[in-house]
Amino acid sequence: MIRYPRAAMRVLILGGDGYLGWPTALRFSARGHEVAVVDNFSRRRWHQEQSTDSLTPIRSLTERIDAWRELSGRQIAAHVGDIEDGEFLDRVVGEFLPEVVIHYGEQASAPYSMQSRQAAVETQYTNVIGTLNLLFSLRDRVPDCHLIKLGTMGEYGTPDIDIEEGFIEIEHKGRSDTLPFPKLPGSLYHCSKVHDSTNIHFACRIWGLRATDLNQGVVYGIETDETAGQEQLITRFDYDETFGTVLNRFCVQAVIGHPLTVYGEGGQTRGFLNIRDTLQCVELAATNPAASGEFRVFNQFTEQFSVAELADLVRQAGNHLGYEVEVQNVENPRVELESHYYNATHTKLLDLGLEPTHLGEELVESIIHAIERYKDRVIADAIEPRTRWNPGELEGRIVPAS
Amino acid sequence: MIRYPRAAMRVLILGGDGYLGWPTALRFSARGHEVAVVDNFSRRRWHQEQSTDSLTPIRSLTERIDAWRELSGRQIAAHVGDIEDGEFLDRVVGEFLPEVVIHYGEQASAPYSMQSRQAAVETQYTNVIGTLNLLFSLRDRVPDCHLIKLGTMGEYGTPDIDIEEGFIEIEHKGRSDTLPFPKLPGSLYHCSKVHDSTNIHFACRIWGLRATDLNQGVVYGIETDETAGQEQLITRFDYDETFGTVLNRFCVQAVIGHPLTVYGEGGQTRGFLNIRDTLQCVELAATNPAASGEFRVFNQFTEQFSVAELADLVRQAGNHLGYEVEVQNVENPRVELESHYYNATHTKLLDLGLEPTHLGEELVESIIHAIERYKDRVIADAIEPRTRWNPGELEGRIVPAS
Repeated sequence: MIRYPRAAMRVLILGGDGYLGWPTALRFSARGHEVAVVDNFSRRRWHQEQSTDSLTPIRSLTERIDAWRELSGRQIAAHVGDIEDGEFLDRVVGEFLPEVVIHYGEQASAPYSMQSRQAAVETQYTNVIGTLNLLFSLRDRVPDCHLIKLGTMGEYGTPDIDIEEGFIEIEHKGRSDTLPFPKLPGSLYHCSKVHDSTNIHFACRIWGLRATDLNQGVVYGIETDETAGQEQLITRFDYDETFGTVLNRFCVQAVIGHPLTVYGEGGQTRGFLNIRDTLQCVELAATNPAASGEFRVFNQFTEQFSVAELADLVRQAGNHLGYEVEVQNVENPRVELESHYYNATHTKLLDLGLEPTHLGEELVESIIHAIERYKDRVIADAIEPRTRWNPGELEGRIVPAS
Repeated sequence: MIRYPRAAMRVLILGGDGYLGWPTALRFSARGHEVAVVDNFSRRRWHQEQSTDSLTPIRSLTERIDAWRELSGRQIAAHVGDIEDGEFLDRVVGEFLPEVVIHYGEQASAPYSMQSRQAAVETQYTNVIGTLNLLFSLRDRVPDCHLIKLGTMGEYGTPDIDIEEGFIEIEHKGRSDTLPFPKLPGSLYHCSKVHDSTNIHFACRIWGLRATDLNQGVVYGIETDETAGQEQLITRFDYDETFGTVLNRFCVQAVIGHPLTVYGEGGQTRGFLNIRDTLQCVELAATNPAASGEFRVFNQFTEQFSVAELADLVRQAGNHLGYEVEVQNVENPRVELESHYYNATHTKLLDLGLEPTHLGEELVESIIHAIERYKDRVIADAIEPRTRWNPGELEGRIVPAS
């Protein structure tokens, strides 16, 4: 049974201080929903630990919430705590009784997860145990609530067949079944997202929860309708080797006169989307909820590009704006195919009404302009890749005495 | 490159105090290998917490090791600690420099994982983080070591197609690839084993580790070559609702005059194997290691039975021995299909030379005889299923005010 949402819903956003979580909170608040956010500021802490920072001068969560209330007259509630703390999360869910939970509350960096054993354990602990705690709170407090979980296209890896949206019909030895699409995650972070998907699917099958897993591509861009021109509301923008994603990083490199660092050949192809489209997609999922017991997977991206294509695009846009932009192929710190088949289905969100923002020179130029405002804040040292997927390739390792 | 093992190897057994871990330690020690075991006695602790116990009067680890040394002249080293403690595990691996690690060191009960949020978190934390720590220690200390990991057939669930051994060739839209077999785990414990498989596969792909995942069926039986007739060496035997498995539980029920409790219809079909065959399989895997970078999956069982078939078999064997045995269909505490297609491939271990022990009345009678010796130790109260997969079906739950 699908429960059609009322005009105003109680929306709980986990990771509501983050790059996407904060603009999502503003969007749902602007639409008149009752919004509460949960965050433990781990992204801010990880940046402090690595001596890096957001390009944009983000305000504290309280300052942002105050600024939004002054601007819009709307209140966003904040709960500061760890979702790995099951008691805390259960109290928040039990008191707020959300009708939708949008779950961004995870360690989302692949390089971070590959830095060390400690960072890998922190990533999988935070992501898997946090989400598991959430599933129990939903089961016990609000079993009809719609969970919208941010997944990643990186769960699929680069198989040699077309990627489907979560499930695939397999014919085998004269029989057939529709089963979870096989996963080949490319980092221990991506593994943690596969674990989450397995747990959430289980909770839908066994407990009858309803969930939408948004397997998102790589997001780019800074501004959304609610934050544009409002510096006190601006969201974070990461460009460092750990938390920065490729297109955002290239745009920063173009502005500061750093060569665009393409890892290896640059034939790595991925799905991409604009931050404005992330908000569209999450809204479409929320207003068209999964059915009770349904685990629904949407591939959330609008266009596919190779890394080399993106570097070319940024070089052209940069040249237009008078920058000298060089493209540099650096040794790939990751273990990944640099030339591969890639074709991922992504029709379900289009069917719900997604109107894609297309990436072109003009859009890249607008990102570059937004970056120019903060170019003095760039920490250039933080851009070069240092985290290797397989440190054993470089360093000597202890082997058994024999 | 396959490294052919020398006659004597350094074999590290995680969970070496357990039902299978201890007999495995004895087997490898008897063969002349250098054996070290790691355990934190969590299974003994969980039994204390639930006021249950092994049917067999198992000795402490130290007493068993002493008894084995007196009997065989061979020494087994013991390291007491948690594999979730990465520093501890890394120290053990770094000092012992194992050539083979056999990993039984997990919370292995499906009902335990479904008891509460806390038990679910403990299960996934213990299993996922423990195994992740191990992968880093292997990478950094002994990258050539062969990891033999106990998985479970329960990772696959009951898909409507034949189950293959870990991977399946999928033809899709005119292309094809061999990909991980899709998983439909049936409990949060089984989910944790799927997570482990994902992480281990990753470590083989990215770091070049070598691993064999033994997706084991349900094990039955008590005695192995090394323990038969040696009560001070006997392994544990669980029959309670939490840690007991179906055939062992039925045999105990037959002996104490308790109806055999079949959950639901009893059409649930699974793969089974004798504890003696577990040891055969693990030895075959150890002496025929995976190649460097290879993640190899064997389906480790010898025969398929439905629960109703097993109940019938135990009833017949019991009757032969003069017991009145009743079969009772109780309400199924689990959420699972009670009638389904099931056909799982299991040829890879046979190809390596596995000689299956076949289950029949005679074998059941021998298990019953072994149980009779300890029938006064049975805690009858602990057998009835109390842990429900979906407690929400019974209890009222808080729902959103609307």
